[in-house]
Amino acid sequence: MAAEIANPRSDSTNGSAGDAEGVADGEPFDPAFALHRGGKMAIEATVPVRNKDDLSLAYTPGVAKVCSAIAETPELVHEYTWKSHVVAVVTDGSAVLGLGDIGPEASLPVMEGKAILFKQFGGVDAVPIALDCREVDEIVETVVRLAPSFGGVNLEDISAPRCFEIERKLQERVDIPIFHDDQHGTAVVTLAALRNAAKLTDRSLGQLRAVISGAGAAGVAIAKILVEAGIGDVAVCDRKGIVSADREDLTDVKRELAGFTNKAGLTGPMEAALDGADVFIGVSGGTVPEQSVAKMAPGCFIFAMANPTPEIHPDIAHKYAAVVATGRSDYPNQINNVLAFPGIFAGALQVRASRITEGMKLAAAEALAAVVADELSADKVIPSPFDERVAPAVTAAVAAAARAEGVAHR
Amino acid sequence: MAAEIANPRSDSTNGSAGDAEGVADGEPFDPAFALHRGGKMAIEATVPVRNKDDLSLAYTPGVAKVCSAIAETPELVHEYTWKSHVVAVVTDGSAVLGLGDIGPEASLPVMEGKAILFKQFGGVDAVPIALDCREVDEIVETVVRLAPSFGGVNLEDISAPRCFEIERKLQERVDIPIFHDDQHGTAVVTLAALRNAAKLTDRSLGQLRAVISGAGAAGVAIAKILVEAGIGDVAVCDRKGIVSADREDLTDVKRELAGFTNKAGLTGPMEAALDGADVFIGVSGGTVPEQSVAKMAPGCFIFAMANPTPEIHPDIAHKYAAVVATGRSDYPNQINNVLAFPGIFAGALQVRASRITEGMKLAAAEALAAVVADELSADKVIPSPFDERVAPAVTAAVAAAARAEGVAHR
Repeated sequence: MAAEIANPRSDSTNGSAGDAEGVADGEPFDPAFALHRGGKMAIEATVPVRNKDDLSLAYTPGVAKVCSAIAETPELVHEYTWKSHVVAVVTDGSAVLGLGDIGPEASLPVMEGKAILFKQFGGVDAVPIALDCREVDEIVETVVRLAPSFGGVNLEDISAPRCFEIERKLQERVDIPIFHDDQHGTAVVTLAALRNAAKLTDRSLGQLRAVISGAGAAGVAIAKILVEAGIGDVAVCDRKGIVSADREDLTDVKRELAGFTNKAGLTGPMEAALDGADVFIGVSGGTVPEQSVAKMAPGCFIFAMANPTPEIHPDIAHKYAAVVATGRSDYPNQINNVLAFPGIFAGALQVRASRITEGMKLAAAEALAAVVADELSADKVIPSPFDERVAPAVTAAVAAAARAEGVAHR
Repeated sequence: MAAEIANPRSDSTNGSAGDAEGVADGEPFDPAFALHRGGKMAIEATVPVRNKDDLSLAYTPGVAKVCSAIAETPELVHEYTWKSHVVAVVTDGSAVLGLGDIGPEASLPVMEGKAILFKQFGGVDAVPIALDCREVDEIVETVVRLAPSFGGVNLEDISAPRCFEIERKLQERVDIPIFHDDQHGTAVVTLAALRNAAKLTDRSLGQLRAVISGAGAAGVAIAKILVEAGIGDVAVCDRKGIVSADREDLTDVKRELAGFTNKAGLTGPMEAALDGADVFIGVSGGTVPEQSVAKMAPGCFIFAMANPTPEIHPDIAHKYAAVVATGRSDYPNQINNVLAFPGIFAGALQVRASRITEGMKLAAAEALAAVVADELSADKVIPSPFDERVAPAVTAAVAAAARAEGVAHR
């Protein structure tokens, strides 16, 4: 279907201005297909290769000394290669956007998009690596083998619960940062928005009780970071209701979750948790009925982040909440990962961090929240992705936290 | 040692113009280290991400349609991602330049160099992938898993005989071109030079008897392409002498070699083969004694390609040979792989070839030889790497050959 819309074959040898404007063979014009034709990225040489002398410095024989130096002093690889500033964006195509399991090739447009966001917002080079394998140990082993070529690994769109195990096992085996953005990027930005919402309404995180709808990659990571940041209590809900220790259908990850969330010992459907709750965080899709929303505490915060359809429509949310955020760019307060991952990796790479610790994520959230300090309002608890202060602030905070936590190597 | 020369740590946060000129902490200045600081390449976005509208086309939600289209019609990955123009430069760091087994990290400066040559000379994007594994099947499996992300794979600096098996097994499993440049790039350029040397001296390839010193990656591939191109006879020599069917110490690869080379049934040391030979091709290092060179046929060709020290010094070679070539840029007739691999991959990618056939390599050699047609002389049997006619000629010839051989997919 889409192939017919775009009919890309009709002019495949010529992907230039002409077809961005044009209509191929009478097919309807679609700006997305025109933009993506030929991909969205390229390699750029940063040294000249104009003549024999250039060639003999950048390649043989000059390059041999640099290779020998690295062979003798391995950490020089961070000084004399692009490893110091390049990240692999690794996926298996199993949980791509809202599209689900579309496989590695079909995931590539997203991975390229991610790569150019890394560059645009963080000055970090990134290479899409969509893997044709699915077993946890296969993915781990493959990325371990790739690790010499990269300064960090951004895991992307890998389905839960495999994503948790892959991240943990990988980080145990390599000395470069492994970061599953669907988990931690989302968690960092959510915490930043929540910090500012609390500040705006003069409350502390410790006073807040939150409900998270969704116990996948994002939900689990948000729960963890909120607990680390000192939230009063958080209840995570999956399709069967509140994740609580008495449930017998829990996966390992949810059992762990039950251990450090839900201090109140709530059970039953999500509606029960929402009763009197201060915060709703939606990372699940689906719809929350208005009568449940109405039971939340006065002055509550509603972050309904499902895309394109928020779990609670902003119009309804505003009837009950002091602060409303979504995942959409056409409403205020967009919870967008691009606010976090470019600066987090830029900071980690800057100090050659061997991992991205919880402290570094908390520091990123604080720095991100602080960017809007003076402009803080109910419609601005989080900065715009195009706010140029964001990446430098996050980068500096993450680099400093890495040093403070002893994982920096320069 | 080299680390002390460069002392890169002293100014690691600032790799700009200043330190290319400067001397760090009184250490001697080395232009190679200055040039390689921070690596030699970067990623470039080829679409704009300036504002919300750009973002929603290049990333979510716009990108989802493109992903869905590829999921439905897999070959669209070649239209809407950089797969259509990006190659992985894959090594295990086991046979890097003349340095040998220096491992993946230390090989990276060479792989980056190769990547920027791909770009500069062929307009092909290339990503260094230095793997931390050594077993043939591990390397094959890893590259198979990476294959969705790339349009082709250039194998580089992998030691023989593993390189032969890796290339063969990989090509059986993926539908993108696999090309071990140390073998085939060298072979294509050598054949092009030999064609022109024969033309210059009014001989046909069928009249020539060649001796190849070296039965590693390059030697084996050169022997194959010369036989395919119709050379009269070729004898390949390793450290123990002429590779002949009666030897009992041959590896599988050399046994195969013995089956299609050395029709004359020569045995003994290389000197025996050189007696009356028309062509010497050195890809081994070491030195050939002048008295052996003196026994070659009148008007012979000497291609002594070891770097930096040719097997036969050009001054000695010129005493006996009608045409002399080396691997060095400071003598005429440099046999340089950069004359072949950028155009070969550009041609293969242009028509989405599923492999690089023998016919495509032969066509590349012919096109490369033809570039110097009118300027052909003893000092110019091969064009300069900076001759701008080279890559387009090779690209066109390879694309046409791929179509003729039925391996093109557009």
